[in-house]
Amino acid sequence: MLARAALACALVAALGAAGCRGPYRDVAERIANDAGRSDGAYVKVAALATEVGARLSGTPALERAIAWARDTLARDGHENVALEPVTVPHWSRGAEAAEIVAPAPRKLAVLALGGSVGTPPEGVTAEVAVVSTFEELAALGAGARGKIVLFDHAMRAGEPPGASYGHALPFRREGASRAAKLGAVAVLVRSLTARSLGAPHTGAMKYADDGSPRIPAAAISVEDAELLARLAHLGPVKVHLALGAETHPGAPSANVIAELRGRERPDEIVVISAHLDSWDVGQGAQDDGAGCAIVMESLATLRRLGLRPRRTIRVVLYTNEENGGAGANGYAAAHAAELPRHVAAFEVDSGAGAPRGFSTDGPQPWAGDAKRLANLLAPIRATAIIPSFPGEDIMALKRAGVPLLGLSLDNEHYFDVHHSVADTLDKIDPANLRRDVAALATMAYVVADRAETWRR
Amino acid sequence: MLARAALACALVAALGAAGCRGPYRDVAERIANDAGRSDGAYVKVAALATEVGARLSGTPALERAIAWARDTLARDGHENVALEPVTVPHWSRGAEAAEIVAPAPRKLAVLALGGSVGTPPEGVTAEVAVVSTFEELAALGAGARGKIVLFDHAMRAGEPPGASYGHALPFRREGASRAAKLGAVAVLVRSLTARSLGAPHTGAMKYADDGSPRIPAAAISVEDAELLARLAHLGPVKVHLALGAETHPGAPSANVIAELRGRERPDEIVVISAHLDSWDVGQGAQDDGAGCAIVMESLATLRRLGLRPRRTIRVVLYTNEENGGAGANGYAAAHAAELPRHVAAFEVDSGAGAPRGFSTDGPQPWAGDAKRLANLLAPIRATAIIPSFPGEDIMALKRAGVPLLGLSLDNEHYFDVHHSVADTLDKIDPANLRRDVAALATMAYVVADRAETWRR
Repeated sequence: MLARAALACALVAALGAAGCRGPYRDVAERIANDAGRSDGAYVKVAALATEVGARLSGTPALERAIAWARDTLARDGHENVALEPVTVPHWSRGAEAAEIVAPAPRKLAVLALGGSVGTPPEGVTAEVAVVSTFEELAALGAGARGKIVLFDHAMRAGEPPGASYGHALPFRREGASRAAKLGAVAVLVRSLTARSLGAPHTGAMKYADDGSPRIPAAAISVEDAELLARLAHLGPVKVHLALGAETHPGAPSANVIAELRGRERPDEIVVISAHLDSWDVGQGAQDDGAGCAIVMESLATLRRLGLRPRRTIRVVLYTNEENGGAGANGYAAAHAAELPRHVAAFEVDSGAGAPRGFSTDGPQPWAGDAKRLANLLAPIRATAIIPSFPGEDIMALKRAGVPLLGLSLDNEHYFDVHHSVADTLDKIDPANLRRDVAALATMAYVVADRAETWRR
Repeated sequence: MLARAALACALVAALGAAGCRGPYRDVAERIANDAGRSDGAYVKVAALATEVGARLSGTPALERAIAWARDTLARDGHENVALEPVTVPHWSRGAEAAEIVAPAPRKLAVLALGGSVGTPPEGVTAEVAVVSTFEELAALGAGARGKIVLFDHAMRAGEPPGASYGHALPFRREGASRAAKLGAVAVLVRSLTARSLGAPHTGAMKYADDGSPRIPAAAISVEDAELLARLAHLGPVKVHLALGAETHPGAPSANVIAELRGRERPDEIVVISAHLDSWDVGQGAQDDGAGCAIVMESLATLRRLGLRPRRTIRVVLYTNEENGGAGANGYAAAHAAELPRHVAAFEVDSGAGAPRGFSTDGPQPWAGDAKRLANLLAPIRATAIIPSFPGEDIMALKRAGVPLLGLSLDNEHYFDVHHSVADTLDKIDPANLRRDVAALATMAYVVADRAETWRR
């Protein structure tokens, strides 16, 4: 029996665990056992989705979410629970409608893109020009003048969702200014999802700072985009678009902070973070209620287990990720003096799927070491170290050289609901959240506790 | 070789085919080969979904659909292409909106149920009472007075979709009058679907003829129903509901007819049918554009192949299946004298899935014989004879003793889109339609051609 145990020990060591039956393997087991029995994260995201729901920057709903997060973190017994004030953009969609007016009337499902200007009160009515790439837009040339340009670029089921989203994103983000330069009067963008049951998906757009006209921009459903493309193939199609979108003066908001203070080097910080704001439709359940719940419950789990690491673990719940990044920038500015002592920053902002591992913002010299630590998560199959985008908010810490890690989750169905009325609690499987908490709590604890830090 | 062929022949005979290498097996092969190479049905449903779209009784869109069907049947070269006038109900939804007003404002996605009265212009505002069964409604008793009752009965993925829909249907159909008897001021009904991405699903409701008040009734999305149930669990929830629904005087409409006249007994009829009307959202692609396309293309396939059966095959495309059945009743009345010579009536109204076989309105003495004929469809795996509901419209022929057969299709994802904005062309797989046409054209031909008919 001893020989067999020794062999297992050697195998585990060969597989790269940080010491066979060493303290971190025990810690990982304790965390996994505790998280596996707890519905704490689900209870948190259920409360946020149910009692608050959608919470765009500048709204009373986001203020309620911030108060809820502060109260919940305090109730969990954390140290230094605080709000850190930030001024956020305030955009509202108002009333909006779109319909085909020729060849025959048809209603369209529409959501203005965040940041869009409104139309005149009577709306704009124009013929639709359909393109699926910027090359096709350029080929339109003067043919775009006076038109409503539809960007009909498809995300497809079966493509890697993150990459597919990345390919489609420029049309939503830059489409308006690109079309405006050619004289278009408005743009419609096919929703960024590979699967649709009729709901449009909103998201941020940005006007170019080059003097090109600021024209209205809205998402339409996949179904309606395909309908317009088929109709336009048959003959001229006219659409009427009315958007009540408005940008208001900046509004007061706040990041929410809480800590598990380090036992030896409390001034060295491991950030675990997510964003508290959401778009103004649905319940912000996966984007990013789940991330907030996973982060909050990870700290609660460590505290419940009495696992106080060498360094401080700090929860940061950012405001205004969706349309501005004021929370992330505000955190980086307010804590500038402290950033050299940030030994790592984690973000959770990719839904509520099962954990796969961690993403590292491209190849990193410390990736191999991170992989050895992630092997602690073999029992929950979250060992991958992936050189991809780790999360929008922690990118604000990149310039300071903070090692960045995104909790990587199965995102096969994330974009089905992302930024739409369908981002609701019913899509979340509590079993995934338990494993997500185990993955984040373990990795954050080990990074905050072990002697070594990653060279910056 | 001969011996082996004889063995195969004996095996096929043992499996119940109607004569080994007999004329119908050859016919079935010819039809399957032709249908398998043709996108005729897809082209037809694409035209209807794209050029017409949603087409509720009483609307100009349904008139366009009727003209399109007549013209398409004429272009396919059929005999006796005709419109048979019918007066249909005319209901319209008008503007509508619903929102939670307390404990905090939240928008709800809403679609009035077909046939509902409207609210007063200012809407109704009341506390919500949530029930999931009629027993729970009864238990509410006086607690329903002055409330908006939410019927939160769930269809679940994994349940047989047809049965699950059947269980949920009474809440949509009868819920308003049942709640009104207890003093409720309006009802909301959880949409009848097991999978949702935020869209509500409408459908017909009917007020009881017992003097109970006619209160407004609307569908809300699965997501919003679950949200209301969770909120109501936490405390009182108030909803504001405003429906512009109205019932107008009856409107002129028509069934569309076309024939492949029989070569020996043209006065004996096999009906193949579907309904041309749809609800007023989406494109009516699966309900029942696909059925119309399958029926129309089945007749076109037989004509293209020069397969003129002994008896007449008649296409009937009913108007007003969704909210009245005036088309089906009109056909039965107009053709009453002919019904004794209707040897069978097929209906296609369950989406656009792969064919499974035929449903027979309960056990039938001729089911075994039908099963032997359906074995001709073994190559396309459509051999099932199922004693279930064959289709709403042909039920009007039941009293006349006409043998009824529904084309049974895989309906795993039918209710995901049914009666919603998501019932659109993109959900239809042309490969399924090819097999659906092969199944219907073969079975209709054989029933119309062979010497025997089913005892009535």
